[in-house]
Amino acid sequence: MSRYVISLGGNALGNNAEEQKKLLKYVAHAIYPLIEMNHDIVIVHGNGPQVGMINLAFNESPSTPLMPFAECGAMSQGYIGYHIQNAIQNIMLERHIKRPIATVVTQVLVDEKDPAFLHQTKPIGSFYKKEEADELSLKHGYTMVEDAGRGYRRVIASPKPVDVIEKESILSLLKDKQIVIAAGGGGIPVIQRNGELVGVDAVIDKDHASAKIAEIVGADELFILTAVEHVYIDYNTPNQKALKDITLKELDIYLEESHFKKGSMLPKIEACMNFVRATGRPAVIAALEKAVEAFKQTSGTIIKP
Amino acid sequence: MSRYVISLGGNALGNNAEEQKKLLKYVAHAIYPLIEMNHDIVIVHGNGPQVGMINLAFNESPSTPLMPFAECGAMSQGYIGYHIQNAIQNIMLERHIKRPIATVVTQVLVDEKDPAFLHQTKPIGSFYKKEEADELSLKHGYTMVEDAGRGYRRVIASPKPVDVIEKESILSLLKDKQIVIAAGGGGIPVIQRNGELVGVDAVIDKDHASAKIAEIVGADELFILTAVEHVYIDYNTPNQKALKDITLKELDIYLEESHFKKGSMLPKIEACMNFVRATGRPAVIAALEKAVEAFKQTSGTIIKP
Repeated sequence: MSRYVISLGGNALGNNAEEQKKLLKYVAHAIYPLIEMNHDIVIVHGNGPQVGMINLAFNESPSTPLMPFAECGAMSQGYIGYHIQNAIQNIMLERHIKRPIATVVTQVLVDEKDPAFLHQTKPIGSFYKKEEADELSLKHGYTMVEDAGRGYRRVIASPKPVDVIEKESILSLLKDKQIVIAAGGGGIPVIQRNGELVGVDAVIDKDHASAKIAEIVGADELFILTAVEHVYIDYNTPNQKALKDITLKELDIYLEESHFKKGSMLPKIEACMNFVRATGRPAVIAALEKAVEAFKQTSGTIIKP
Repeated sequence: MSRYVISLGGNALGNNAEEQKKLLKYVAHAIYPLIEMNHDIVIVHGNGPQVGMINLAFNESPSTPLMPFAECGAMSQGYIGYHIQNAIQNIMLERHIKRPIATVVTQVLVDEKDPAFLHQTKPIGSFYKKEEADELSLKHGYTMVEDAGRGYRRVIASPKPVDVIEKESILSLLKDKQIVIAAGGGGIPVIQRNGELVGVDAVIDKDHASAKIAEIVGADELFILTAVEHVYIDYNTPNQKALKDITLKELDIYLEESHFKKGSMLPKIEACMNFVRATGRPAVIAALEKAVEAFKQTSGTIIKP
């Protein structure tokens, strides 16, 4: 029996409640083999489209107050966590297996001095015209940038996870063989200021958060499930090559050669490398639809020390 | 050392994120004495204004999908749970006490055959004109009713809680002396249909949910903290009398005499009576600002077998 942390992309969760429920049935089936084998499991999920939707609803609705981004993230943890635990409970009910599963609303500590706060890069929410963007900037102090000709968007910081505030709760549940959903959307970002935990407008990369959780819970393996079967070098060129089994040293070279796309494969690889470096244990990047094979290490890219 | 379930009203949580944070500092101070004495604590909170706000944001925003009420409730659990755990963590940091606290996203089982589903009475969300109400009714099958001359509102069912799906997780955390926030807003209502747990458009009364949780976790006492210091008979009349210590039998008489207001004090009393009847242990209805006194049984109305 092993302990696994599984990271799921927010893009795999659809654009509304009905879609999300349907897609999560599929995810539950993909993860089920690990549940049946009685492994310890922590699920971390993305929330990009979902937190964007929640933020947009509050921005557009004339009668509701403005909702800070940390609070929108907390809402997305409830929304997505409920659907994940429900989907997994239902497949267990169908297969007559009984294991408790719960979502832990999770704050993740970041460093107020993280350079990411000086150089905000993560676009969130809707697109605005220049005048609207200037107004938002003036009114709320938002940093607004032009986004690839599609208009102006708010950008916020994407700092690195330092610690997981609710780690003891996650560990207690794991100890009792419960399945845990935690750090949804990378966690609610909080900084420590004047001895208090204070929520901040930021987004923590969910793969980095899952690597941090994997390290904290002593996971035997970190699985990042995404849309592609492998990590590729020379991606989308005639020389494209799938990586199946690779060491940190080899990856360092590919990183220097800039093979991996920022905001897409790069953070996944960096998160895996952080976990492998910190623990000496393997991390796998694989396709959600090949999860079963990935769990057997017959699909995906396995990153080893 | 005892085990307590504390039920907090959603009305005590304000109308936006800033207000909620400020008010929860106060709540954290009120509950702190029990934390310091190392008692087991489960906190259940209401979500009336908050889930209404979330629902309204999605209803009014032209670009976001319609959000079912169960999912809005799940969002409110993340939103409020995050603020409660953060406020209590911060008072513990200040006082140099270390106890883990976490919010468990909680589904509460209700019975599909609960008569409440045939007689929907709980008004939620915004007020509409007659024509808008008719359109919503036609389009989404909502039951819309005229609300005290203020316009039309959607009403949904308020079924009784039957079981708490995530009870094992709550019990695991309690066993490890962790503070648990659970069943926010009365829990996300689910029914069992074709062997699956299915979310439904309904609202479970949070006091009834807290009584059910108190029963399940074997609480020594149930505290319902509200805006008034006592339960009163002949409330708001010259004969008004505060109840300090009362038995189930005495309360039965007052219930028959219709002393308590529906949708306000009545559900609190019924919830307490359910707990006292099921366990033989006391329940207290008291003012949030007199929580410390209530914990010592020197304020509030104590209901005993």
